[in-house]
Amino acid sequence: MTTRTATSRTRLSKEERRSQLLDLGVRLLSTRSLDELSIDLLAEEAGISRGLLYHYFGNKHDFHEAVVRRAADDLIAQTAPPVEGEPLHRLLVSMTAYLDYVDANEPGYRSLVKAASGGNDTLREIYDEARAALTDRIFREDAQGTLISETPHTRLLVRGWAAMAEELVLGWKADPQGVTRDEVLEMLVVSLPALVAALPSD
Amino acid sequence: MTTRTATSRTRLSKEERRSQLLDLGVRLLSTRSLDELSIDLLAEEAGISRGLLYHYFGNKHDFHEAVVRRAADDLIAQTAPPVEGEPLHRLLVSMTAYLDYVDANEPGYRSLVKAASGGNDTLREIYDEARAALTDRIFREDAQGTLISETPHTRLLVRGWAAMAEELVLGWKADPQGVTRDEVLEMLVVSLPALVAALPSD
Repeated sequence: MTTRTATSRTRLSKEERRSQLLDLGVRLLSTRSLDELSIDLLAEEAGISRGLLYHYFGNKHDFHEAVVRRAADDLIAQTAPPVEGEPLHRLLVSMTAYLDYVDANEPGYRSLVKAASGGNDTLREIYDEARAALTDRIFREDAQGTLISETPHTRLLVRGWAAMAEELVLGWKADPQGVTRDEVLEMLVVSLPALVAALPSD
Repeated sequence: MTTRTATSRTRLSKEERRSQLLDLGVRLLSTRSLDELSIDLLAEEAGISRGLLYHYFGNKHDFHEAVVRRAADDLIAQTAPPVEGEPLHRLLVSMTAYLDYVDANEPGYRSLVKAASGGNDTLREIYDEARAALTDRIFREDAQGTLISETPHTRLLVRGWAAMAEELVLGWKADPQGVTRDEVLEMLVVSLPALVAALPSD
């Protein structure tokens, strides 16, 4: 995420300015839900007029779509596993980053999951893309197949595991009940190979 | 589910009649989404006036809520594990019934999951109750603790496993990719003990 402030006086292209406003939108989303993120609020925080914002984002729907797409891209980028290393270690690094991301952006992330599962087709599509990127990566970036080899069964299982990871993290954030962060992390990491090992053999 | 038809001429109490209409509503929901289930459609299928339906269900929202509650109760009842038997066998019976339920009610069930994750708080509450009933049962009805003993960690894990089961079944229904029903069933059943076995020990 950029550290430029939205009130920077530097002369920027329309694309750069739009991108800067999106960063601000994502930052605002880290502490509130999508429903609470209005163009009015963005205008106020950016110190510019609503009219100008409509120049960058056609309407509230387009604005929300752009912010959610940026948030999904951030999530994908931030949870990228390291290129090198043991598969389980790379999974640990990626899951640590996922937990960090949810920590830093809980309301927005919850809102993304909710919007994706709810009625809005565009938001669901963006979310599905993000989730697919996260799960596909487990196969793509594990070229040696030491952790998981790709079959229709493992694809389905990894998809299920991703849903479990989401529920584990959001459930734990909502009510930790004495379970520590390290324990959640370990549950996330050991669950995947355990599930693969338990798969019925062909 | 009752086999009485909605056009039965038997004299029924208001409560019985309402219950009969709910059965019809749930039946209609098995082949369409909640959005497509209108009071008009129910009136047409039941062969009674819209006005009379408003006598039983105050408005569309109350009607949907009552149908979803009935559907959730059906799901809970139909997936009840047998009282006796080996824990893994009881889990297998329960998961078979779950798969049967989704087979018979796919559009309505998808719609319930979607409505629950989306904006509607009442529907989410009903759904959360249903899911909690399903997961709590794994502890309550496993009194010997042979499969899983109840701790904050296993509670969180079972909740995650339930989300995985839902994603596995709905993902598989949408695109089986050659994975057989028996294989899905086995994945559902073996995954839970595998996850528990992989839990970090205290």
